[in-house]
Amino acid sequence: MFPQAPEPWLDLSTGINPVPYPCPPLDATLFHRLPSVADHAALRAAAARAYGAAASCIVPAPGTQILIETIPRLVAPSAAAVVGPTYAEHAAAWARAGHAVSAVRDLGEAGDAQVVVVVNPNNPDGRTWPASTLLAAADDLSARGGMLLVDEAFADFESVVSLCPYLRPGLVVLRSFGKTYGLAGLRLGFAVAEAGHARRIAAALGPWAVAGPALAIGRAALGDATWRSEAAAARAADAGRLDRMIARAGGTSVGGTVLFRTADFPDAPGLFRRLGEAGIHVRRFTEASARLRFGLPADKDAWCRLSRILR
Amino acid sequence: MFPQAPEPWLDLSTGINPVPYPCPPLDATLFHRLPSVADHAALRAAAARAYGAAASCIVPAPGTQILIETIPRLVAPSAAAVVGPTYAEHAAAWARAGHAVSAVRDLGEAGDAQVVVVVNPNNPDGRTWPASTLLAAADDLSARGGMLLVDEAFADFESVVSLCPYLRPGLVVLRSFGKTYGLAGLRLGFAVAEAGHARRIAAALGPWAVAGPALAIGRAALGDATWRSEAAAARAADAGRLDRMIARAGGTSVGGTVLFRTADFPDAPGLFRRLGEAGIHVRRFTEASARLRFGLPADKDAWCRLSRILR
Repeated sequence: MFPQAPEPWLDLSTGINPVPYPCPPLDATLFHRLPSVADHAALRAAAARAYGAAASCIVPAPGTQILIETIPRLVAPSAAAVVGPTYAEHAAAWARAGHAVSAVRDLGEAGDAQVVVVVNPNNPDGRTWPASTLLAAADDLSARGGMLLVDEAFADFESVVSLCPYLRPGLVVLRSFGKTYGLAGLRLGFAVAEAGHARRIAAALGPWAVAGPALAIGRAALGDATWRSEAAAARAADAGRLDRMIARAGGTSVGGTVLFRTADFPDAPGLFRRLGEAGIHVRRFTEASARLRFGLPADKDAWCRLSRILR
Repeated sequence: MFPQAPEPWLDLSTGINPVPYPCPPLDATLFHRLPSVADHAALRAAAARAYGAAASCIVPAPGTQILIETIPRLVAPSAAAVVGPTYAEHAAAWARAGHAVSAVRDLGEAGDAQVVVVVNPNNPDGRTWPASTLLAAADDLSARGGMLLVDEAFADFESVVSLCPYLRPGLVVLRSFGKTYGLAGLRLGFAVAEAGHARRIAAALGPWAVAGPALAIGRAALGDATWRSEAAAARAADAGRLDRMIARAGGTSVGGTVLFRTADFPDAPGLFRRLGEAGIHVRRFTEASARLRFGLPADKDAWCRLSRILR
C-alpha cells in the first residue's frame, strides 16, 4: 500500500509489549530433547503463582490462539454469543467449529446462548466487566450446561480483577504470555479452568505442544514479579505519553489498555495514510472507520517517528 | 524404579536422532515478534522441497503429536482402524475424538472402517508398506468418503517411498521434524495433504501455532540436504553397530528404523532391570514382554555404557 514508505517499518499494529522480558541463556538440550513432565510441572507451578489458580487448573499451550481454535471443538455445537465488538478470532473460531454465533453488545443480551465469550479488558476499547458480573454469568451458564469463556489476554498490566482465583464449573479463562512479556514469537499462553475441564483441554493439545525453550523462559518470566510490576509502571507511563500525542493529533480516546490505545479521529483514513507513508503501521477497523489503535513505540527513535506524524 | 542407578541417566527410550542438527544463531526478534506470513511461507517452501509436495499442501504444526490429536476432531465420528501394534497415541486420539477404534494387523483387515491409520515405517518393528498398496487403500477409502492417515514419522532416513509426492483426496501424511534433526524440544512437525484439506487442518491450529525459532531453524535444516544425507549414513552405521551389540546379548531383531532397533530377548525383564540399574532407560512393551526397543547412543561414553550391559 505504501511503496515509498521508509524502511524499516514501525509496527504499532499489535498490543505486544515492545520492551521484552530479558530471556535467560538457554541450555541447548531444551532444543534437543522432548520437554519433560518436570519441565511442564515447573511452568505450571510458576503460572499458578502468577495467576492465582491451582497448578492442576493451568493448561500451557503454544499461544492462546490455538486455544481459541481448540476449545470450540471440544463443545457440542450450540448457540455461542460473543460480547463485542472485540477480537474477531473468537466469533470466527466458534463458527468454524459448527456453533451458531451471535454478536451481542453485553452479557445481558446473550439470551439463551449456551456459550458466552467476553474479552476482559476488551480489545480494542479496553472495556471491563466486574468479577461479580462475570461470575454470576458463569454460574448461570453452568446451571444450563453452558460455558463462559473469559479472554484475559491483556489483564496482566491492568487493574481488572482476574477470574483465575475464582474458577468454577463452566468457566474457562485464557491468559496470554507473549503480549505481556514481549515474547510473541515464543508461542506461549494458558487456559485456566477447573481441573477436570483443564484435563480435557490439555488432552486435546497432547503432551508436548509447548516447546522446551518456551517452558523454560515462561517459568523464569512468570516467576519474576519484580520485572512484571516495573514493566507495568513503565508501560503505563508510555500509554499516558501516547494518550497525550493522540489528543494533540485531534484524537478522542475510546479506551484501551496499557499495551494499546484506541481513539477516534476526525479523519482517521487520512491519518492512517500519513502514518503509512511514514512507514508506521497501526490498526484500523472496517466496522469503525473513524477508529485507529496504536501499540506502544519501543524506543526514542520510534517515539520520534510517531510524534512527527501525530502533531 | 532404580534409585541406585548412576546419574545422569542415558535415555535410549526414544527414537530421536542423538546428534542434533547444528542450529544457526537465532535473531532475538524471532522470540519477540509474532511469526510473520513470510516466515511461514519460507518454512513451507523448504518443507515442500524436502518432502516433494507443493507448498500449499504443507501444514506446519508445533510437533506431529498435536496433529495426531487434532485431525480426528476434524472428522465426523466414524469407524477408525489402526494398523498395528504401533505408536499407541493414534488409537487413543481417535477414541478421544469419539470414533469407534479397532486395532487391525494389516490394511486388508480394515473392513468397512472409514479411517485407516498406518505408520510407515512402523514403530516399533520397522514394518513398511509399498506406496502402491497404500495409494490403492487411500483411493478406496476416498471413494467411500474416508481417509488414510499415513504417519511417516521415521521416513526421513529410510528407503521407504514417501507418499508426499502422491497426494490425492482422502490421503493425509504426517512428517516429524524433531526426530530426524534431533530437535524434539523445538516442536515442529507437518501434515501434508491436498490443498483444501491442508487449509482445514491449518485453520484448526490457527495462524501462529509454530514458534518463530522453530520456523527459522526448520527452514535452515529442511534446506540442508547435505546434512540430511550425511546424518542418514552416520546413523545407519550406528544402527548396524547397535544390531551387533543386541545380537551379542542374545537378542533376536524384530526390525526397527535407523533411529531405533527393536528385539526380543530370552529374558527381556531381566535385561531391562540390568540396564536400569546401570542408568540406561530403554523402551519396553506391556503387550510384548520379551521385546525391548533401543534408541541410538549419542557418543563414545554412551556406547561404552550400553556395551558394558549388552554383552
